[in-house]
Amino acid sequence: MLELRLVQGSLLKKVMEAIKDLVNDANFDCSATGFSLQAMDSSHVALVSLLLRSEGFEHYRCDRNISMGMNLNNMSKMLKCAGNDDIITIKADDGSDTVTFMFESPTQDKISDFEMKLMDIDSEHLGIPEAEYHAIVRMPSAEFARICKDLSSIGDTVVISVSKEGVKFSTRGDIGTANIVCRQNTTVDKPEEATIIEMNEPVSLTFALRYMNSFTKGTPLSNMVTISLSSELPVVVEYKIAEMGYIRFYLAPKIEEDEDETRPQA
Amino acid sequence: MLELRLVQGSLLKKVMEAIKDLVNDANFDCSATGFSLQAMDSSHVALVSLLLRSEGFEHYRCDRNISMGMNLNNMSKMLKCAGNDDIITIKADDGSDTVTFMFESPTQDKISDFEMKLMDIDSEHLGIPEAEYHAIVRMPSAEFARICKDLSSIGDTVVISVSKEGVKFSTRGDIGTANIVCRQNTTVDKPEEATIIEMNEPVSLTFALRYMNSFTKGTPLSNMVTISLSSELPVVVEYKIAEMGYIRFYLAPKIEEDEDETRPQA
Amino acid sequence: MLELRLVQGSLLKKVMEAIKDLVNDANFDCSATGFSLQAMDSSHVALVSLLLRSEGFEHYRCDRNISMGMNLNNMSKMLKCAGNDDIITIKADDGSDTVTFMFESPTQDKISDFEMKLMDIDSEHLGIPEAEYHAIVRMPSAEFARICKDLSSIGDTVVISVSKEGVKFSTRGDIGTANIVCRQNTTVDKPEEATIIEMNEPVSLTFALRYMNSFTKGTPLSNMVTISLSSELPVVVEYKIAEMGYIRFYLAPKIEEDEDETRPQA
Repeated sequence: MLELRLVQGSLLKKVMEAIKDLVNDANFDCSATGFSLQAMDSSHVALVSLLLRSEGFEHYRCDRNISMGMNLNNMSKMLKCAGNDDIITIKADDGSDTVTFMFESPTQDKISDFEMKLMDIDSEHLGIPEAEYHAIVRMPSAEFARICKDLSSIGDTVVISVSKEGVKFSTRGDIGTANIVCRQNTTVDKPEEATIIEMNEPVSLTFALRYMNSFTKGTPLSNMVTISLSSELPVVVEYKIAEMGYIRFYLAPKIEEDEDETRPQA
Repeated sequence: MLELRLVQGSLLKKVMEAIKDLVNDANFDCSATGFSLQAMDSSHVALVSLLLRSEGFEHYRCDRNISMGMNLNNMSKMLKCAGNDDIITIKADDGSDTVTFMFESPTQDKISDFEMKLMDIDSEHLGIPEAEYHAIVRMPSAEFARICKDLSSIGDTVVISVSKEGVKFSTRGDIGTANIVCRQNTTVDKPEEATIIEMNEPVSLTFALRYMNSFTKGTPLSNMVTISLSSELPVVVEYKIAEMGYIRFYLAPKIEEDEDETRPQA
Repeated sequence: MLELRLVQGSLLKKVMEAIKDLVNDANFDCSATGFSLQAMDSSHVALVSLLLRSEGFEHYRCDRNISMGMNLNNMSKMLKCAGNDDIITIKADDGSDTVTFMFESPTQDKISDFEMKLMDIDSEHLGIPEAEYHAIVRMPSAEFARICKDLSSIGDTVVISVSKEGVKFSTRGDIGTANIVCRQNTTVDKPEEATIIEMNEPVSLTFALRYMNSFTKGTPLSNMVTISLSSELPVVVEYKIAEMGYIRFYLAPKIEEDEDETRPQA
């Protein structure tokens, strides 16, 4: 039997909004440690990894490890019916082919049960090795989202270049070129407005803006985003989920465009 | 001659928004008592009944009973041109084939006249007998609208079941089932947040969500909605219009689904 | 070399939004006096004239007169990437076939360079003679925009008639007629809410609402709009740009509808 009660139910709503456009169907894995998901996007280019640790739930009961295949679009439809202040409980009986989402309004005057059919989904769990990154950029998530959106109006790819002074986002397209530089800035009034760069060596990598824009759907989850870059590894775009976990997006750099990398940086 | 001056002109704008999607053309009946309308929706399934009592108007002159056929979409286009704080006057000369809507801004600096052609519409006025209902639910109108909208993302029909403890709204669809229970609650700070159930006997009826969602266009008219249910009668969904009248929507239950009624209530 | 630094960069964003739907490609003319544009709309019916005086820029360097052909849609895409509080600098090297827009955030933590290709555009600079107008109406720009939008839901053209008492906007269409009268009003609390009429002789002219609605895209630039009317001349719809210039739209009256002019004024 499974019963996970999350007082801040809006977090689960935001998690679904962050991944439902990228992933159609996925297995949610539930164990004593937490509630997690790992899935490739539908075109098998990007990887999403979600973790909600058991400590973050008000009540967490998971008698045995269980993997529940869900259609994320349908799950999202149901979670949209929860109020933003509702408590959400995820329930499943052993051996059942359904999962139930229960929503309780703060006053307990409105109680909803949504029951969804589970699916059989081929599991393809990838080990994600711990890695050293050449550069880690921590910046306001809204700023990163704005930059990805802005550059999309000019070109299809973004070159992210990190130096000690800052991080540069560049693109080029039919109508011209664009370069946006965000300077390292640690002396701001509010910590969530800081741009912090940890750099072991300079790095400059090219990515498809389409995916970057999908990743920024995680913006409502956190004020800050962390972008980890290494020339041999997929970039990791991470949004922390309130003390209880994270959502991480992985995307391989575009190799074939390596030669063009320096072009927009004129 | 007809001259009806309504200081709170926004009420008339909201009335039009509430019914224009349901009804294309209708006769507005004007008598010494008030300004009223009764019309079937375009597919002849639901009935709308509107009353604005003469006492609610600042000035009300109606020399003789008159029935004015109007295209509600066109009337809505004109009323949309009134500001939310405007005073609206409806004017018609005896025997004229037009009606004039006059809008006065609060400062009297802007005066608009919109003249619309009247139509000949076959009148089919139905007597609506007073009836006893098995159950009457009074609840926040925004809550009812939210429930109808939410359930529409899962299924096509809603089963409304009333017991002493509360009212349950249920649906089922391809992706699963949903049950939403609102408990009776009379001890709230604000009277418009109360959910009050008057029940003579339990009742459980099925309705098309499409129509229920149309009816909830009346939500801006009132904080509360009243739902009157009886197994042999159409449901009545009523929104009061500020001390001066009401808009009532009638819809027959779906008989053929009677057997399924209990299914989503598992 | 050209370098124009505009502290209130949002003005340039608003200018682009005001003209980009009307004009596709145009030459921006830069001289010691200022930054200006004159262009016909794509169907060669309306004329746009823009002036930003050099004094309005924080820094203004223009070594020699230069005319830069730009695609306004592309320029708008780039300027949309500027924040509303950003400082915008327009830069061009002598003989270069590109122009650069530089955006600096108020904290200087984010610096963007957008480089756009210039185009060769046939120049057709018209002399616009100074003229005497029969009537000049100054009114709140939001009110004028609202009236043009409202009348568009009824008809295709607007008759603007000015008398000493006020200005009347009229239209007629399939569903009926509309007249909106705005009275002269100089005794308001806020000067930007005044409606001021200077009239030498009464005038009544017909215009296509489609163009009037395009012109009202200038509304965010100024609280007031000035409408100058003469029976022999194109109307001028002018929005002042903060102390530093203006945007003016010119449109010829519809002659063929002269006979109908008085009809909606019944």
